[in-house]
Amino acid sequence: MERIIELLDTTLRDGAQGGGVEHSLEDKRKIAGLLDRLGVPLIEGGNPGANPKDEAFFALARRAPFLSGAVLVPFGSTCRAGADPADDSALAALVNAGQPVVSVFGKADVRQVRDVLRVTPQENLRMIEQSVAFLRARGLRVLFDAEHFFDGALTERDYAFEALRAAARGGADTLVLCDTRGGSMPEAMRARTAEVRAAFDGVKVGIHCHDDMGLAVAGSLACVDAGASMAQVTVGGVGERCGNACLGTLLPTLQLKLGYRVIPPQNLPLLTQTSREIVEIMNLTPNPRAPYVGYGAFSHKGGMHIDGVVKDEASFEHVPPEAVGNRRRFLLSDQAGRAGVYARLKRLVPQLERDDPRVKRVTERLKRREQRGYAYENADGSFDLMALDTLGLRRRYFEVLDFHVLSGAARDERSAQAYIKIRVDGTEEINAAEGDGPVNALDLALRKALRVFYPATEQMRLSDFKVRVINAGGTASVVRVLIESTDGRQAWSTTGVSSNIIHACLMALMDSVEYFLAFVA
Amino acid sequence: MERIIELLDTTLRDGAQGGGVEHSLEDKRKIAGLLDRLGVPLIEGGNPGANPKDEAFFALARRAPFLSGAVLVPFGSTCRAGADPADDSALAALVNAGQPVVSVFGKADVRQVRDVLRVTPQENLRMIEQSVAFLRARGLRVLFDAEHFFDGALTERDYAFEALRAAARGGADTLVLCDTRGGSMPEAMRARTAEVRAAFDGVKVGIHCHDDMGLAVAGSLACVDAGASMAQVTVGGVGERCGNACLGTLLPTLQLKLGYRVIPPQNLPLLTQTSREIVEIMNLTPNPRAPYVGYGAFSHKGGMHIDGVVKDEASFEHVPPEAVGNRRRFLLSDQAGRAGVYARLKRLVPQLERDDPRVKRVTERLKRREQRGYAYENADGSFDLMALDTLGLRRRYFEVLDFHVLSGAARDERSAQAYIKIRVDGTEEINAAEGDGPVNALDLALRKALRVFYPATEQMRLSDFKVRVINAGGTASVVRVLIESTDGRQAWSTTGVSSNIIHACLMALMDSVEYFLAFVA
Repeated sequence: MERIIELLDTTLRDGAQGGGVEHSLEDKRKIAGLLDRLGVPLIEGGNPGANPKDEAFFALARRAPFLSGAVLVPFGSTCRAGADPADDSALAALVNAGQPVVSVFGKADVRQVRDVLRVTPQENLRMIEQSVAFLRARGLRVLFDAEHFFDGALTERDYAFEALRAAARGGADTLVLCDTRGGSMPEAMRARTAEVRAAFDGVKVGIHCHDDMGLAVAGSLACVDAGASMAQVTVGGVGERCGNACLGTLLPTLQLKLGYRVIPPQNLPLLTQTSREIVEIMNLTPNPRAPYVGYGAFSHKGGMHIDGVVKDEASFEHVPPEAVGNRRRFLLSDQAGRAGVYARLKRLVPQLERDDPRVKRVTERLKRREQRGYAYENADGSFDLMALDTLGLRRRYFEVLDFHVLSGAARDERSAQAYIKIRVDGTEEINAAEGDGPVNALDLALRKALRVFYPATEQMRLSDFKVRVINAGGTASVVRVLIESTDGRQAWSTTGVSSNIIHACLMALMDSVEYFLAFVA
Repeated sequence: MERIIELLDTTLRDGAQGGGVEHSLEDKRKIAGLLDRLGVPLIEGGNPGANPKDEAFFALARRAPFLSGAVLVPFGSTCRAGADPADDSALAALVNAGQPVVSVFGKADVRQVRDVLRVTPQENLRMIEQSVAFLRARGLRVLFDAEHFFDGALTERDYAFEALRAAARGGADTLVLCDTRGGSMPEAMRARTAEVRAAFDGVKVGIHCHDDMGLAVAGSLACVDAGASMAQVTVGGVGERCGNACLGTLLPTLQLKLGYRVIPPQNLPLLTQTSREIVEIMNLTPNPRAPYVGYGAFSHKGGMHIDGVVKDEASFEHVPPEAVGNRRRFLLSDQAGRAGVYARLKRLVPQLERDDPRVKRVTERLKRREQRGYAYENADGSFDLMALDTLGLRRRYFEVLDFHVLSGAARDERSAQAYIKIRVDGTEEINAAEGDGPVNALDLALRKALRVFYPATEQMRLSDFKVRVINAGGTASVVRVLIESTDGRQAWSTTGVSSNIIHACLMALMDSVEYFLAFVA
């Protein structure tokens, strides 16, 4: 019988404890939406009792639910020492989050209880049991995160199990065993998970691993093998210190390689895109070597490897890239991505046949641009314009003939000036603007000049603006700019790449306006 | 008795098959030198029979040996089908490399032999045996890389073992079991390694894992546990597709956690620096979450984590950072608060008491700055300077009196110009520079001006540069710039926030130079 593994993604909670990760309220909503679309059943959304932004996020979800199937799980600590759960504002915040599942954590290592929490071992057990019971009495499904469980079981085995028993008595539905320091070996965790399974009949077991020895995925797999039915992960493996078990790595191994049911099978090809979009929202540098979902996960470089894959794909691929929505790349040839390009081109030119030579032309141009640092995954608008250009179907609405920007030490909202000269149907227009920084000044000057010919451009505005350094070589690195624009109804995204950040921005701005004129206005 | 695990680093061979990795001859020499200094005994240096650059590298090492203890191992394939090893130029190249240890690979999966190599299974065995015997007869220690071994043992177990037997008959000293596709589970690999150990008395066993399921380290550990005495790794885990087992992750777990002897114990604190220097030479983006050696491997962000570590470091650290030459960092964020600030301040002002009112002053200033968009969690350098400033202890090394940048439509490497005026101890200096974009030009101009007063600034350079838009309101958004700098030994990071991207960059640049002068130079 197919065994189901319940996935809990904690990118929005434990992930936010990782260096360089900071989710805005809107980022949180977007990330949860993408995980929901992938079919992740439980999304740990934050700690509403400790963090006002997380509280606002749960309030938003309660007012206007935006998830179709996933449950947004609030996370928080047990009640304070000496306190009644009914008087605890953090527990109240978990209830007020208005979700059917909550996650509450308590310490399972007696040394931590004494030295860090500084309460008696007995009081800690009371806090756990009563907090869980308080939440359970409100009809909630309670997940108990047993912090430091694996280390605690080495310090004093009986106490670690007492902590679990306290949670079980309180009515916890799932006991989540945490390798909080990331220092446990998978084999030891496997054995301990089996002990817990044997000791707690009818209570589910979950596993929460950290990657401090690069073993978070291995540890999770060992515990699932020993009977854990929940695995906790984050996208990109973000999280405290070295991070958590990575969703993009663990999920396909569980589902494709080991035959567990984790998400609806038809959703698995969404994995690569989902993972990359979320990493992009977090503005992190994607790991090209990330298993399954990395840009290079199915890249073949050695000559013998390429030869082997051409003769038999399975030679150097343990699963087909399409199974997880990734694609094969040959780093020294140009055979990649035709099917994907064709699928996108058909949206622009519905009558296009698969073997039309123009599909190959666009694919080749895409590949050349990717080598120069472009990434069209989050820049549909620029991709469409590039494709139309390659097919000879692009209409040029305007040309930029010249521009200059000037910026100095003055620190006010008009700290930069820009001049621009454009041409539309043979008519030139020169304009200039002041702005807050050179990009803003140039943006304003371009719009002022364009308005003469295209008054509709008044309706569009930029909604987001991101800069990523591609080959990190200090301030002369190549930068990729990503711009999102909207007219209030539709949104589109465009990109520009250059070693000069001003040029990269202007390219993305020009694409944005052109896309608006061609497809939106 | 202490068991010795022999480490073979293949950064220069398998690592070079990874996307984005390309070693120059000089890079190879530097990388080998750093690995030698760390105490790695075997360094796979390349394939001299297939690659002229690798041939030149071995020729260089033969003419002018530059390693103190490590052996540079040449790698190559068995002789061709139907050929006599004595007539094979690739085998001759292995001998000509002039090293006492050689690595030769052959296929152990019968399906690969038939479909990709396209020779008879029997001929493949002859090629293996005779090639190994040819090398052995020249007095060399021969490592046999059994490609596709674990997959082959599933396809046709007997044949996979036949391939090993052929190598053993030829005189192979070590049978290296390769999980070429990275698709084998650690438990299966452990069992197979035990079978090989039992079948080949007196022959050593090695393990070579790929990370396509994020299990390269777990698989290596499982096989070592089952009796493998050699582990193959790369620095940073670079290599074909998702890469190989990572030296920085596997080595400390073997030596610190499991008690094997791998490198001289007194060298282990060189690990972080060695790993970072080699990643730097390869011009790769370092993984901040890399176990043990990552910039964030011992970074604590959650308030309760910081509180726990301050009370007892082992709370959230499974090994002390100093053991691998890394250091603890407290990330300052809205999750941290007073405890985190105090922990950081104590490093600057050791005599500071927890309830000193200055701790509160710094905390409050930190919070005000965070509200304006600052994030110090990845900008230790700027935090220290801000804290010193708040405490009245900051020394101002220079002032920027004025600057202007100019950038236009010209698309070449000198697309922007910058002018800057600084003052040091009452003396003004004006300078200017051209650069690739306004930030690069300003950076160059600032350094030119500073060099007059502080020649040491020549030694520092920027290693990474990131821009994040904080309140996304189009091109006039507030941007946060993060700069990482290095002098080749230490790394530090600084930040600047402004609605003008040029101003934000200049602030981060100024902090970077000031931090260098105050703490590094």
